[in-house]
Amino acid sequence: LSIPGPNSDHTLSEPPKTPRGEFAAIERIRRGLDRRQPRPAPGEVWIGDDAAVLSDPNGILLLATDLTVAGVHADLEIMGLDDLGWRAFVAALSDIAAMGGKPGHAVVGVAGPPSTDLDLLYEGIGEAAASHGCPVVGGDLTTADQLVVSVAVTGSVVDGPGPVLRSGAAPGDSLLVTGALGGSAAGLRLLREHRARRQPPSGAEGLFQAHRRPCARLEEGEAARRSGASAMIDVSDGLAADLVHMAKASVVGFELTGIPVAAGATEKDALGGGEDYELVVATSDPSAMVEEFTALGLRVPVVIGCCTDDPRERTLRGEKLEPSGFEHPWS
Amino acid sequence: LSIPGPNSDHTLSEPPKTPRGEFAAIERIRRGLDRRQPRPAPGEVWIGDDAAVLSDPNGILLLATDLTVAGVHADLEIMGLDDLGWRAFVAALSDIAAMGGKPGHAVVGVAGPPSTDLDLLYEGIGEAAASHGCPVVGGDLTTADQLVVSVAVTGSVVDGPGPVLRSGAAPGDSLLVTGALGGSAAGLRLLREHRARRQPPSGAEGLFQAHRRPCARLEEGEAARRSGASAMIDVSDGLAADLVHMAKASVVGFELTGIPVAAGATEKDALGGGEDYELVVATSDPSAMVEEFTALGLRVPVVIGCCTDDPRERTLRGEKLEPSGFEHPWS
Repeated sequence: LSIPGPNSDHTLSEPPKTPRGEFAAIERIRRGLDRRQPRPAPGEVWIGDDAAVLSDPNGILLLATDLTVAGVHADLEIMGLDDLGWRAFVAALSDIAAMGGKPGHAVVGVAGPPSTDLDLLYEGIGEAAASHGCPVVGGDLTTADQLVVSVAVTGSVVDGPGPVLRSGAAPGDSLLVTGALGGSAAGLRLLREHRARRQPPSGAEGLFQAHRRPCARLEEGEAARRSGASAMIDVSDGLAADLVHMAKASVVGFELTGIPVAAGATEKDALGGGEDYELVVATSDPSAMVEEFTALGLRVPVVIGCCTDDPRERTLRGEKLEPSGFEHPWS
Repeated sequence: LSIPGPNSDHTLSEPPKTPRGEFAAIERIRRGLDRRQPRPAPGEVWIGDDAAVLSDPNGILLLATDLTVAGVHADLEIMGLDDLGWRAFVAALSDIAAMGGKPGHAVVGVAGPPSTDLDLLYEGIGEAAASHGCPVVGGDLTTADQLVVSVAVTGSVVDGPGPVLRSGAAPGDSLLVTGALGGSAAGLRLLREHRARRQPPSGAEGLFQAHRRPCARLEEGEAARRSGASAMIDVSDGLAADLVHMAKASVVGFELTGIPVAAGATEKDALGGGEDYELVVATSDPSAMVEEFTALGLRVPVVIGCCTDDPRERTLRGEKLEPSGFEHPWS
C-alpha cells in the first residue's frame, strides 16, 4: 500500500478541477458501514447531517467532529497558530449550531511536528472554547509531519422542537441566512495580497477577523430551532454548495432572490467562499423566526429566497446558479 | 510561524532520546485551559485520565479521542490500511475500556492524500466498530500530505460503581493485568524482520495479529469496575510507562513480582512495547475480581504485584524498574 507524497495541487479554498471526490466518497463509506452496523434507533440520525443525533433518556445527544489541516484549511503565512486553533474549534462547534443544539464538551487531538508552538495553538483553542461556552475536557497529542487538529464536540437538545436536519425543507419554505456572507473569503484574498506585496495587512480588519476568527452561530441555531426551522445547515463549504447539500437532502429546489454580501466582499465570495459559518435556515414561518431573533437581541436573519418543488431548480435572480464551493478531491 | 518538514528521527515504538516532551506538554496545556474554563462539576473528570467523565442526568457520559498517524503509530510497510483503521478505532475504544465504560458511538476523521484507499481503510474501521459494538455515526474527510485518523468515542457508566480513574490506587492494593503483554511489540519486530529479508511473514500469526488487530478490553474493563477496581489504565504506551502514569496519579509506588509475557515476546517487549491494550487494574480485593472475570467466562486476570506507600518505589523482582515505553517528543 503506497501513500504518495505531498499533494501540492491542492490549495486553500480553491475548488478542485475534478469535483467527483469528497461527497461521493462519504456516500460510499456510509453504505459500507451500513452493511456492518445496526440501524439507528428511532429518532436517531447517523452519518449524513452536520452532527449525529443520538437518543439519550433525557433528550438528544449531538456528536460531531472536524479536522483542520495546516496548508489546506488554514494558511499559516497569513494567520497565527492561535487563529488556526480557534478556527478548528469553531468548525466543529458550527456543526452543533447547525442542528440547533447547545454546546456540551470538546476533545481535541493535535498531530504535528515536535517544534509546533502548542502554547500558541491552545491559546486559540482555549479562547474559542471559552468564548462559545464549550470546555475542552480531553484530547490526544502526537507527532506528525503536518499539523492536523481534530476537534470532536458534543451537544444537546433538551427543550422545544428536536434537532433541525438538512432534510426537512419543503417547497414554499422561505430560506434565510443569519448574516452577510463572503467575509472570510474576501479576508483570505486580501491577507494574501498584502503578503505577496510584503505589506502588513491593514484597512480591512473586519474581513481579516472574519477569516481568522469566525464565530459559530450557536444562539442563532437554537433560536431557529425553537421558532420552527424545517431545515438548517452551516455555511462551511460555500453558500451555493451548502444550499445544494440541503436541497438534495430535502428533495427540493430553490430560487434565490439575492444574497447579503459582507462589506468588502463580492457576491462570488459570498456564494463560493465558505467558512463564514453563518447558518442557512428553511422555514414555513419566517416572521416567527425574525420575531424570535429580535426578541433575543440577535441580528435579524435575511430572507434570500425560497424552496421549490423541482429538485433540479437552483437559481439566483432567475439565472441558473453555477456550482461553486469547496470539495476535497478523493479518488 | 514556521512549521518545519518531516521529523525523520521519530520512528515507531522507539522511545525518543529526550523524554521531556509529551506529558509535560499535556500538563502545560491543561494548566492553560484551566485558567479560561469553568471547574468540572462534582464527579466530573476532565483532562488527565483515559477518558473525560461528564455528568449526565441518567449516569455518566465518557468522551475520549485518539489520533493514529501513518508512519508514527502504524507502519504501512507491514500492515494494510484496514489494519491501520482497526488500530485507530481500538486505540480510542481502549480509553473507554480503561474507565470501565460501555461503548457508545464513534465519529471518525480522516486526513490523508487523495489517493488513499478509503474503502480499505474504512473496512478496518467498520470491522473494529462492529466487533466492539460501537457504531460509527459521523465523521470528517479532508486532504493532507500524511494519513491521520482521528477517532472520538463516547461511553457510558449506568450501573454499579462509577468510572475507574487512574488516581484511586492505595498502598497495599494488588495490581493485575488482563492478559499477557509484549505481543504487539514482538509482532512488529518480526514483521519488520521478514520485511527486511523480503520474506512473507509466517510462523508467528498470533503475534502478527496482536500487532495488527489488537482488541479493546471492554468487557474486562466493566468487570473490573463492577468488582471494585480502585484504579485502571490501558497499556498503550508500554506497561512500565502506563504503570507510572497510574502510580503518579494515585501517589503510590509499586513492587512487581513478575509480568505475563506473550508467547514469542520478551519481557522487554512486555514492559516497553505498548499497544497491547490489555488493562492494568489495582484492587484491594483481587479474589472478587478473579471471581467476577471467571463468572463471565473472561480470561482470568494475572496478579503482577502490589502498590506501596512510597511513590518513589518502582521495582520488578526487587530491582529498580528502568523507565521505558513511548512518549512523543515535544519541545
